[in-house]
Amino acid sequence: MFRIIFLTFFLSFFYSCNNEENIDFAIVIHGGAGTILKRNMSEEMELSYKLKLEEAINIGYDILKNNGSSIDAVEATIKILENSELFNAGKGSVLSNKGEVEMDASIMNGQNLNAGAISGIKKIKNPISGARMVMEKSEHVFLSGDGAEEFAMSQGLEIIENEYFITKTRLNSLMNAKKNDSIKDNKFGTVGCVAIDKYANITSGTSTGGMTNKKWNRIGDVPIIGAGTYANNKTCGISSTGWGEYFIRNVVAYDISSQIEYKNISIKSAAKNTLKKVKNLGGNGGVIGIDKKGNILMDFNTDGMYRGYKKSNGEFEIKIYK
Amino acid sequence: MFRIIFLTFFLSFFYSCNNEENIDFAIVIHGGAGTILKRNMSEEMELSYKLKLEEAINIGYDILKNNGSSIDAVEATIKILENSELFNAGKGSVLSNKGEVEMDASIMNGQNLNAGAISGIKKIKNPISGARMVMEKSEHVFLSGDGAEEFAMSQGLEIIENEYFITKTRLNSLMNAKKNDSIKDNKFGTVGCVAIDKYANITSGTSTGGMTNKKWNRIGDVPIIGAGTYANNKTCGISSTGWGEYFIRNVVAYDISSQIEYKNISIKSAAKNTLKKVKNLGGNGGVIGIDKKGNILMDFNTDGMYRGYKKSNGEFEIKIYK
Repeated sequence: MFRIIFLTFFLSFFYSCNNEENIDFAIVIHGGAGTILKRNMSEEMELSYKLKLEEAINIGYDILKNNGSSIDAVEATIKILENSELFNAGKGSVLSNKGEVEMDASIMNGQNLNAGAISGIKKIKNPISGARMVMEKSEHVFLSGDGAEEFAMSQGLEIIENEYFITKTRLNSLMNAKKNDSIKDNKFGTVGCVAIDKYANITSGTSTGGMTNKKWNRIGDVPIIGAGTYANNKTCGISSTGWGEYFIRNVVAYDISSQIEYKNISIKSAAKNTLKKVKNLGGNGGVIGIDKKGNILMDFNTDGMYRGYKKSNGEFEIKIYK
Repeated sequence: MFRIIFLTFFLSFFYSCNNEENIDFAIVIHGGAGTILKRNMSEEMELSYKLKLEEAINIGYDILKNNGSSIDAVEATIKILENSELFNAGKGSVLSNKGEVEMDASIMNGQNLNAGAISGIKKIKNPISGARMVMEKSEHVFLSGDGAEEFAMSQGLEIIENEYFITKTRLNSLMNAKKNDSIKDNKFGTVGCVAIDKYANITSGTSTGGMTNKKWNRIGDVPIIGAGTYANNKTCGISSTGWGEYFIRNVVAYDISSQIEYKNISIKSAAKNTLKKVKNLGGNGGVIGIDKKGNILMDFNTDGMYRGYKKSNGEFEIKIYK
């Protein structure tokens, strides 16, 4: 009798260890995909990008390691990228035709499919925290413009003047774009993060300043649940970066998840199929993701994508080019 | 020899007839799903709804019959519903917490996956035409607020004061909602239309005033491509109506399409699965659609849904209750 109890105990212990290994915690990030070529990048610049990506990954990784939630990890990691001038999100966002910064962000919790998104934000210091607040403190999923900012203020979020976000580099880009009457940017600096925590909960988040010289309060894919961001513990979490219009029309983030759910294929194969659809319509960009087993996705059909991941089994990588 | 030529000619003629029968043109519409109970509806009121639905269907049907495109049919049909005070779209839209009408609309072309959407609209007489203009005349998919209106004006769309949209009934509803501090409406009057034309092109469109007493520039599922509206000639066209937040989180319109594409099941089975997901999270509402073979979908998990369809084979139906 005693032996059986012992055996049961041993087996369940063995199973739980094995199970935990199966759902390693992990984090993956991107800082935008686009025409990022080694020949156009100074060594110094390359190093700044890599160091900032590493700092952002580590902040989220440490939260996961200390039994924190994937929501906390994703928010903290994206805040680092938003606070850096290097990326097109938060401080350093590209400028609209009016010379203002108008930001979009979204976040989704794969455990309960709760989601929050904001668009046309001019005054919330960290848009990803605004999106999280919409998810957790409102009855809504998606708020926009002044209304979203009113809500954020009512919740005590840090509000800041639009000037804080504006950098010299982006002012120059806007001048060039206006000269060429172009809204296309040859580099998209949207940032995003997906994490799976020790409890197998997946969270995805994305944040952006959109497109240089954008007009008419254009909304891209970033605040669109299903296009820019999607998370579901049953399948995967995804964050997109690229030419937003094509990502909306292809429902990119959810298309990857639905292939995992309905075709039972890997996250990598699913993403390959989806990015091919984007390309066939004339668009480009990239995606990152993590599936429920902790498999990492980083794929793109542009020249480069700022990206990196770190897993509890020790794997760690930061890359920029193809 | 002559016989073979004759036979080939006959067979190809037969095949083309058969093929044309296979892709009958058809149109389906909804005027919202919700707590619509026979005991709360006067016979007079019921008749007004039915007549308006019939008028709207026939406008679109005649366009399809006269070799028109599904885009023209969907736009014309939705305009009839927007211009009627009976539905929560265009004139007769519900009022926001500020006592204004703020409308959302979207349209998608299943032939090339082009799409257009607008949100937070206060002055465009027919939001569905605004969405179509974004699809056809801008490089963008989604514009919002003042910016969307600026764009519409630059394209010569009919602009009108917000007061035009406001009705006594909706003012009363707002007063009641404010008394109860509620944003939930027990009836959602969003309107939508899906059509397939003689050339087998599918278009979907949706238009709404959103939720009574909504705050903070809330955006629902209607302008979200993949949630409120989706169309793809390879699978189907879908328009949703219901509790928007749950429809966004479940990516409802695209979830139906992706089940047809990846699981090869019928549009009706796919919709049943998707509406079950919505219900499991605590939401409700309905969907209409047409698949590439002209099969009609009208399903909902509320007490009723204003709905109807008409097919080139003579089938015609208008219904309100379960």
